[in-house]
Amino acid sequence: MAGPAVARDRSSTRRANLSMVLRLLRDEGPRSRARIGDDTGLPKATVSHLTAELLEGGLVREGAAERDRGAVGRPGQSVEIDGRGVHGIGAEINVDYISLLALDLRGQVSAEQRIPLDVRAAGPEAVLDAVARMIAEGIEALRGAGGLVVGVTLATPGAVNMDAGTVDYASNIGWREVAAVAGLRERLGPGAPETHLENDAKLGALAEYLLVSADNVRDLVHVTGQTGVGVGIIAGGQLVRGAGGYAGEIGHLRLVPSDQPCACGRRGCWETMVGRGALLRYAADPGDMVCDPMVDLGTRLAELRDRAHAGDGRTLEALRRIGDNLAPGLALLVDILNPRLVVLGGHFAFFGEHLIDSVSAQVRELVMAPDAGGCEIVLSRLGLSGTARGGALLALDTVYQDPVRVMNLANG
Amino acid sequence: MAGPAVARDRSSTRRANLSMVLRLLRDEGPRSRARIGDDTGLPKATVSHLTAELLEGGLVREGAAERDRGAVGRPGQSVEIDGRGVHGIGAEINVDYISLLALDLRGQVSAEQRIPLDVRAAGPEAVLDAVARMIAEGIEALRGAGGLVVGVTLATPGAVNMDAGTVDYASNIGWREVAAVAGLRERLGPGAPETHLENDAKLGALAEYLLVSADNVRDLVHVTGQTGVGVGIIAGGQLVRGAGGYAGEIGHLRLVPSDQPCACGRRGCWETMVGRGALLRYAADPGDMVCDPMVDLGTRLAELRDRAHAGDGRTLEALRRIGDNLAPGLALLVDILNPRLVVLGGHFAFFGEHLIDSVSAQVRELVMAPDAGGCEIVLSRLGLSGTARGGALLALDTVYQDPVRVMNLANG
Repeated sequence: MAGPAVARDRSSTRRANLSMVLRLLRDEGPRSRARIGDDTGLPKATVSHLTAELLEGGLVREGAAERDRGAVGRPGQSVEIDGRGVHGIGAEINVDYISLLALDLRGQVSAEQRIPLDVRAAGPEAVLDAVARMIAEGIEALRGAGGLVVGVTLATPGAVNMDAGTVDYASNIGWREVAAVAGLRERLGPGAPETHLENDAKLGALAEYLLVSADNVRDLVHVTGQTGVGVGIIAGGQLVRGAGGYAGEIGHLRLVPSDQPCACGRRGCWETMVGRGALLRYAADPGDMVCDPMVDLGTRLAELRDRAHAGDGRTLEALRRIGDNLAPGLALLVDILNPRLVVLGGHFAFFGEHLIDSVSAQVRELVMAPDAGGCEIVLSRLGLSGTARGGALLALDTVYQDPVRVMNLANG
Repeated sequence: MAGPAVARDRSSTRRANLSMVLRLLRDEGPRSRARIGDDTGLPKATVSHLTAELLEGGLVREGAAERDRGAVGRPGQSVEIDGRGVHGIGAEINVDYISLLALDLRGQVSAEQRIPLDVRAAGPEAVLDAVARMIAEGIEALRGAGGLVVGVTLATPGAVNMDAGTVDYASNIGWREVAAVAGLRERLGPGAPETHLENDAKLGALAEYLLVSADNVRDLVHVTGQTGVGVGIIAGGQLVRGAGGYAGEIGHLRLVPSDQPCACGRRGCWETMVGRGALLRYAADPGDMVCDPMVDLGTRLAELRDRAHAGDGRTLEALRRIGDNLAPGLALLVDILNPRLVVLGGHFAFFGEHLIDSVSAQVRELVMAPDAGGCEIVLSRLGLSGTARGGALLALDTVYQDPVRVMNLANG
């Protein structure tokens, strides 16, 4: 029953109007000033003034001529999102790598990097050193090309406190009460862009959502196979964070009978049956290169995929078991959230063609609503970059929410 | 990443402004025109015009004089929500009763009724007859007192298709593919208010949410003990419906080892272990009056509560078992959704003082996040009327979303 936020004063009305115009151009595409006026209900002079501000700030540019619907006379010049000089950075800390991805305001990738790292063994301080170095290099490269970095989102597994910027607990990387944002700020120094923290699976869900929201999908669950299992939920077009940011913590439920010890200290947690540990345990012996954490994860997963494609019995049996363990958890999420899509990411996406038919059939069988409530299970197309991409998008969203802030940065 | 809706034309700008002013008065309380201008950023003349329209439509009235913050000179007249003549109706179909509750725009109860009925035995046609009669009488009484009924929300258990107005399946009342809204419209005739359909637990969650939203609670799960178990989810201040309206279907998960047959045809469903059937099976023999569906449910539950208060061993043991069966399902919901509150309704609320300490302790033990992620388990204060109240609120919300529609009705 929530409605539009109530603007508090005239300055915030201007900000709200700039934001409305910019989001209109992002969501509905380029259009003339006259059409912006029609679409927003803003007077012609106001639209003129707002687009001039956005042009000056480098967030939009003049596009092709557009003949207005039904208009007589000369066609209007259209306005479109520009912002190729405006970047958001997502930086991810995973169990065995750190990575960075930058997007410009148009959503194009402007920087990308992945560095293998045994995060648990290195410990928080050394990891933050490495992440800070990676971010600083990314910022330097983008600034060197004349770009402006408006923000950084750091992604980690586990339960994070977004407001405090701390990782409360992340058993898979062995972190507890780590002041990650403060640690990064200190290392990046005073000139660094605004930095925030969010859980990796939630950012992955955001990235997946923006790929499908144009198809009117408003409800989505993103389940990503990593060392653990991350779940990110979009309901009614909104990211579900929960009161404390802990939403989506399903990896430690006991859904499949098992006694396998978990990093959390309990036994039989779901993630010990579908996470990377289970996959490698089922598919290979400890000496196998696919189990070596110092080899890039993408390389190792690709090797396992090659084996599956070649019909290797042990690999295929491992994937069958992962699928059988995965289905009850997905069915549970579908019963509770009734998403239009369940998007499988991480290693699930790597082996999707070997999992998806069997998993989909089992979920349809288990879910109470007919035909699984209309839910379809699909594979992420974002590979291992989804989380960092979600982080970059979240950093850029500050521009859409308040264009004035970034225009001041650009001009200041 | 959603923002305010984009208004499509000047007429919708006026509607959006009327809605904004009305919601401001609802959410933030009475205030002068000058302060409405400050709070909304709307020009003084526009505020004058908008409040005049709302006054004329009977949705607001002049209130007490208010001295504006820092203003010199005579104090401004404040404006406040009126709408004592504007009503929304919620009508509930439950397993063994039908009920109605009407609220006026200020949220005051303007009509209330509950009628015992064996809904499963009666069948959809006879039930719709009885519900239509109850609604028609309610409308007549309200209209007789000069009131305007802006809408009716029908609540049923089970999976409903809100857009089509059909109950897809509701195993506890034995309904499948029932065109409930069309059936009601036909019976109520052409002059009837707009009628919609929603799931009972979702409406209960809305009613609970509006009681606590002022305390900045934005994430809540409402779990109601009925014949089955209904779950309604509010995440980030929004009702979670799911893509097909099926969200919250947790009653048929197997969470507690059991072979008890369920109305859905499976065995061991969670609701057979915590629903009314389990409560009565544990607490009484079949001949006991508390098991008689023709006795008002409130009376029967009150009898059981009296027995518990008197220390009756069988009743207390029954409640202990219900609590032990309840905890794993609540923990699951808390792990996935991280709500600030779990509100227990239906028969859980009736026996709350005997359940809540033990259930809370078990949930804290089971949930992965420290201290259950800050979640508190509380009892509904709405008794059996929560669902119908949520329906009435939803019917009234159309007024807040588009005051013009009801002002036209009132003047037309």
